[in-house]
Amino acid sequence: MEADLSAYSVRTDLALEARDFAAAAQPTIPGVLSSGYEKEGIKVSVIDITSEQGAQALGKLPGHYITLEVPALRQKDSDLQDRVATVFAQEFEKFLQKLSIPRNASVLVIGLGNWNVTPDALGPLVVENMTVTRHYFELVPDQVSPGYRPVSAVAPGVLGTTGIETGEIVQGIVDRSKPDLVIAIDALASRSLERVNTTIQIADTGIHPGSGIGNKRKGLTIDTLGVPVIAIGVPTVVYASTIVNNAFDMMHNHFQRQTANTGQILGLMDNLQENERLQLVKEVLNPLGHDLLVTPKEIDQFIEDIANIVASGLNAALHEAVDVDNVAAYTH
Amino acid sequence: MEADLSAYSVRTDLALEARDFAAAAQPTIPGVLSSGYEKEGIKVSVIDITSEQGAQALGKLPGHYITLEVPALRQKDSDLQDRVATVFAQEFEKFLQKLSIPRNASVLVIGLGNWNVTPDALGPLVVENMTVTRHYFELVPDQVSPGYRPVSAVAPGVLGTTGIETGEIVQGIVDRSKPDLVIAIDALASRSLERVNTTIQIADTGIHPGSGIGNKRKGLTIDTLGVPVIAIGVPTVVYASTIVNNAFDMMHNHFQRQTANTGQILGLMDNLQENERLQLVKEVLNPLGHDLLVTPKEIDQFIEDIANIVASGLNAALHEAVDVDNVAAYTH
Amino acid sequence: MEADLSAYSVRTDLALEARDFAAAAQPTIPGVLSSGYEKEGIKVSVIDITSEQGAQALGKLPGHYITLEVPALRQKDSDLQDRVATVFAQEFEKFLQKLSIPRNASVLVIGLGNWNVTPDALGPLVVENMTVTRHYFELVPDQVSPGYRPVSAVAPGVLGTTGIETGEIVQGIVDRSKPDLVIAIDALASRSLERVNTTIQIADTGIHPGSGIGNKRKGLTIDTLGVPVIAIGVPTVVYASTIVNNAFDMMHNHFQRQTANTGQILGLMDNLQENERLQLVKEVLNPLGHDLLVTPKEIDQFIEDIANIVASGLNAALHEAVDVDNVAAYTH
Amino acid sequence: MEADLSAYSVRTDLALEARDFAAAAQPTIPGVLSSGYEKEGIKVSVIDITSEQGAQALGKLPGHYITLEVPALRQKDSDLQDRVATVFAQEFEKFLQKLSIPRNASVLVIGLGNWNVTPDALGPLVVENMTVTRHYFELVPDQVSPGYRPVSAVAPGVLGTTGIETGEIVQGIVDRSKPDLVIAIDALASRSLERVNTTIQIADTGIHPGSGIGNKRKGLTIDTLGVPVIAIGVPTVVYASTIVNNAFDMMHNHFQRQTANTGQILGLMDNLQENERLQLVKEVLNPLGHDLLVTPKEIDQFIEDIANIVASGLNAALHEAVDVDNVAAYTH
Repeated sequence: MEADLSAYSVRTDLALEARDFAAAAQPTIPGVLSSGYEKEGIKVSVIDITSEQGAQALGKLPGHYITLEVPALRQKDSDLQDRVATVFAQEFEKFLQKLSIPRNASVLVIGLGNWNVTPDALGPLVVENMTVTRHYFELVPDQVSPGYRPVSAVAPGVLGTTGIETGEIVQGIVDRSKPDLVIAIDALASRSLERVNTTIQIADTGIHPGSGIGNKRKGLTIDTLGVPVIAIGVPTVVYASTIVNNAFDMMHNHFQRQTANTGQILGLMDNLQENERLQLVKEVLNPLGHDLLVTPKEIDQFIEDIANIVASGLNAALHEAVDVDNVAAYTH
Repeated sequence: MEADLSAYSVRTDLALEARDFAAAAQPTIPGVLSSGYEKEGIKVSVIDITSEQGAQALGKLPGHYITLEVPALRQKDSDLQDRVATVFAQEFEKFLQKLSIPRNASVLVIGLGNWNVTPDALGPLVVENMTVTRHYFELVPDQVSPGYRPVSAVAPGVLGTTGIETGEIVQGIVDRSKPDLVIAIDALASRSLERVNTTIQIADTGIHPGSGIGNKRKGLTIDTLGVPVIAIGVPTVVYASTIVNNAFDMMHNHFQRQTANTGQILGLMDNLQENERLQLVKEVLNPLGHDLLVTPKEIDQFIEDIANIVASGLNAALHEAVDVDNVAAYTH
Repeated sequence: MEADLSAYSVRTDLALEARDFAAAAQPTIPGVLSSGYEKEGIKVSVIDITSEQGAQALGKLPGHYITLEVPALRQKDSDLQDRVATVFAQEFEKFLQKLSIPRNASVLVIGLGNWNVTPDALGPLVVENMTVTRHYFELVPDQVSPGYRPVSAVAPGVLGTTGIETGEIVQGIVDRSKPDLVIAIDALASRSLERVNTTIQIADTGIHPGSGIGNKRKGLTIDTLGVPVIAIGVPTVVYASTIVNNAFDMMHNHFQRQTANTGQILGLMDNLQENERLQLVKEVLNPLGHDLLVTPKEIDQFIEDIANIVASGLNAALHEAVDVDNVAAYTH
Repeated sequence: MEADLSAYSVRTDLALEARDFAAAAQPTIPGVLSSGYEKEGIKVSVIDITSEQGAQALGKLPGHYITLEVPALRQKDSDLQDRVATVFAQEFEKFLQKLSIPRNASVLVIGLGNWNVTPDALGPLVVENMTVTRHYFELVPDQVSPGYRPVSAVAPGVLGTTGIETGEIVQGIVDRSKPDLVIAIDALASRSLERVNTTIQIADTGIHPGSGIGNKRKGLTIDTLGVPVIAIGVPTVVYASTIVNNAFDMMHNHFQRQTANTGQILGLMDNLQENERLQLVKEVLNPLGHDLLVTPKEIDQFIEDIANIVASGLNAALHEAVDVDNVAAYTH
């Protein structure tokens, strides 16, 4: 993980947040299609950005985005986790169909991040729990049971521990192993503490330099790798400045609801644009070492739970023979 | 770890913070003796609370407190870590002398906290790196080299994973193994993000229910255990509400320095007492799951580094034969 | 773990092996009752030693013994593991009834062994996966759902890392927490490589100094602790000398089957008693560092699998509310 | 790790063993140069196979081999470990000079093996402790201190967890990152229990399919990668059949020394060639699951210690600025 160098902007890794932000000003956004549903504590949002106009309105690339929001996911509820894995598998299968990825397309799963930094270990943990099958197709193709496709999985490490840009390593592996599709798992820096470990985004736009918090300047995209790249991102950390900035909003709204007074609420803060305010918060916090990336105390358990959900969901979505009802059994 | 249920108060686990707070109003506090020094980035503060009056002024128990503050400790500098271990060892030796603990007193080190929750794993990690010798004194007393004393070390677990109050377990072990002194290592919730993983406190007041963040309602004190108890505490987590509340102060001070205007600075916030404001922040953050205990992203490395410092320092301070200049070699 | 100092003897920790050995000479042994069944790859043997005569014939204490043998357990088959957990739970429940342990008896699970030595980590891993409830009975007794009993669980460490005899620690915890029953989980040194990680023994005779491979000179028995002690043992390591000695037998039998020649088969080896031979093998291997305790290369996975089986089985057997059909869900 | 399919042969991964075997029959072997020294418990052997004739005599490829034998390495002696790291660094530097590798040659360290299988985790652990610098040379070349060269390090995983042959992954990374030299670290299956975790071999012959125990059918050689490949191998596991077979020899020698009788010593075993005997032992052990790959019980500590030695030694050998006297400080 590394700090997002352009972090003074308000932009977000989540299309959902960008859509909500844009929609506040303009209810219907040309070039942006939204749908979704909520069921038993799991909220699924589908956003398709179909034109450059939509892309500019949201500040996100054209493409397809799915977001799962599960506020209760931090409450160590294994039934809920199983249900999330099932929904994830169903949505991921639909996503593959929407992208016209064939059933027998070979898949390379890339787990970005660092084993030894817990909030950044999501990708490597998902890789560890993938049901890999590519070697059977290569070595004993006639013995592979029906219902499986060739799946491989690699955790390439991070720039700080390998000395090589992750994009270079992945490109080398893609050149050699020639998958039809790359799925990249990554931990993200959140724009909100409440999203940390509760939100999963699936997108077909790949992974771009500077977005997210990994060392991946090169990017993993159809342009660099030559095959489609689906990114799965989960916010696992948040800047202290983000927490503070969000809190100003919450406090402001709280006072506004409580007082008739529409004048001075937070004094000099009221005069600032959100960007200015965030920048100011950063300037004030930084000298004291206060603007760290932070993560919930229970991160070890959260990361393990979400890695199991994503790996179980992917295994079920990628292999027809792996039953959606029983996804959890395929991981430990 | 568990939330400190009385967290609406402004009180702190660190005598240093309590002293600074009290000193702001009253430069000389009767019953409180302070001294200290700073050397190469390590600030050592010694506070002795010698009377009930001093105790009430600071809201801390009478006793002896040493605090090491090392702001650069989060910067993975192994030379600095060695120097901190050395200073820790020297100060801890002096502390034992001040308490008149004899050189051959047997010591039981208790590592409070939970192996599987990284920011709460400090105590167990220190225990893992202690040079234990008590069994040699018991089994082959005539073969023990000079310069060692009987040291034992146990990580008793936490209430949530054992089902037994930690105080009960420790009392049972003390009853059986009869140490002359107990040293308890614990992770604390900080009152400030900048202290997280940069501050170490040594105190002879034991560990009290509700202070800190462990499951230890019973307390580990000379009253419950029958022998002196030295507590070593390191802040490793902080509430999101604490971060926000501190930020309000910083913002306020920032604006105050910048504007001649001494009137409305943070609007309605200016009218609140600090306690009221913290309570309000908590009320606003809580419903959204925003008031989590958080820890820096790099917590895995920080905890390992500080555990090595504390274990190395203790090994050198407890065993004369373990050289202060070479403390780090005795742990891995 | 420590070497069994009396290891030159042929004695075994497993009543099953002792019974088979004795039965070879004397088909019906007075004071020894045997029964058992085999189902889908799981062999269950029940042995009751009901008299001193039986105890002497087997070289085991009077008491009740159950052994599960599952040769395929090393083959990472999660269905089989679930079935073994279920059988374990059923047999353990029957065992509790045979011992007249009441349904609401409070239980303390002791996980012997060392976290950091994989083949010795079985006990601590089981403790980590136990559903502990004692604190709810203590703190909020009227809120405990029916179908649970008070269960606590502690991993006390080993002499080499604590400096205190494990028996002393456990006795201290028992004195304070007053359970009605202690269940102690321990890794054993096997008499045969094929038993390693495939055999589980349950016995009501406690844990005795020198048996097994843990640092537990004091023993955990009804005499030392004042409450019944059920020991659950799994062989996880084997001496190189044991492997060699077994191999001599296998080679001998192999040649015997193949040749009419009943004379010289293994030459000078043929003249030795088994005890003499084992002693000789040890003498020959030792100087070269060849008589290590060894464990299969895949020990990390094996230990995790068996710990899950034992913890799942215990959780289901101890808590009526935990369904036998679904035991695996209660651990991770 | 996978079983060496050609394991019925007596051949060994260690040139030293091959040389000793060949030298038993023929003291001076044309095309084989040997030298060496022993100092404070560390035995260093240098073997150069300079011709095809020498290669055939030893059954090893022409090339340069260095072996460090340290029987006491399993005794957790940190002073000895530091000395071994220093000797390793010195010998490795000389080795690079012998191969005419320039001081500024860029190096890619490949850690073969599997994180999650302790005896196979040597390679990944070494990678974790390497001082990687390549990214500084790429990103801020003018800010790199003198005394460093570009070093990168990757743990590519194993076929069973990635689904891709390790050779393919490494080739892809080499194609992209273009190092001048590859150093591959691998755990080996030993021909002798006494070598496990006590012997380190350095060779410039690369890693060949079927040698060692990794999933690396493709091989890592100058032919496949286009740059020189230095292999560093440490025996960490041994077959049960190997232990038994060695024991037969030891028993035979033991009896021979003790008896005047030069006739029947081990009976029918005496009539077998060593190859026949090993095959027989395997046939006898296999059906009972007795022919496992095994590793010492203390493998967790051993692997950590040797990984630190190799990483410290490599860091000192590769970077002039890293002092040989202080190698251990650069790893944790």
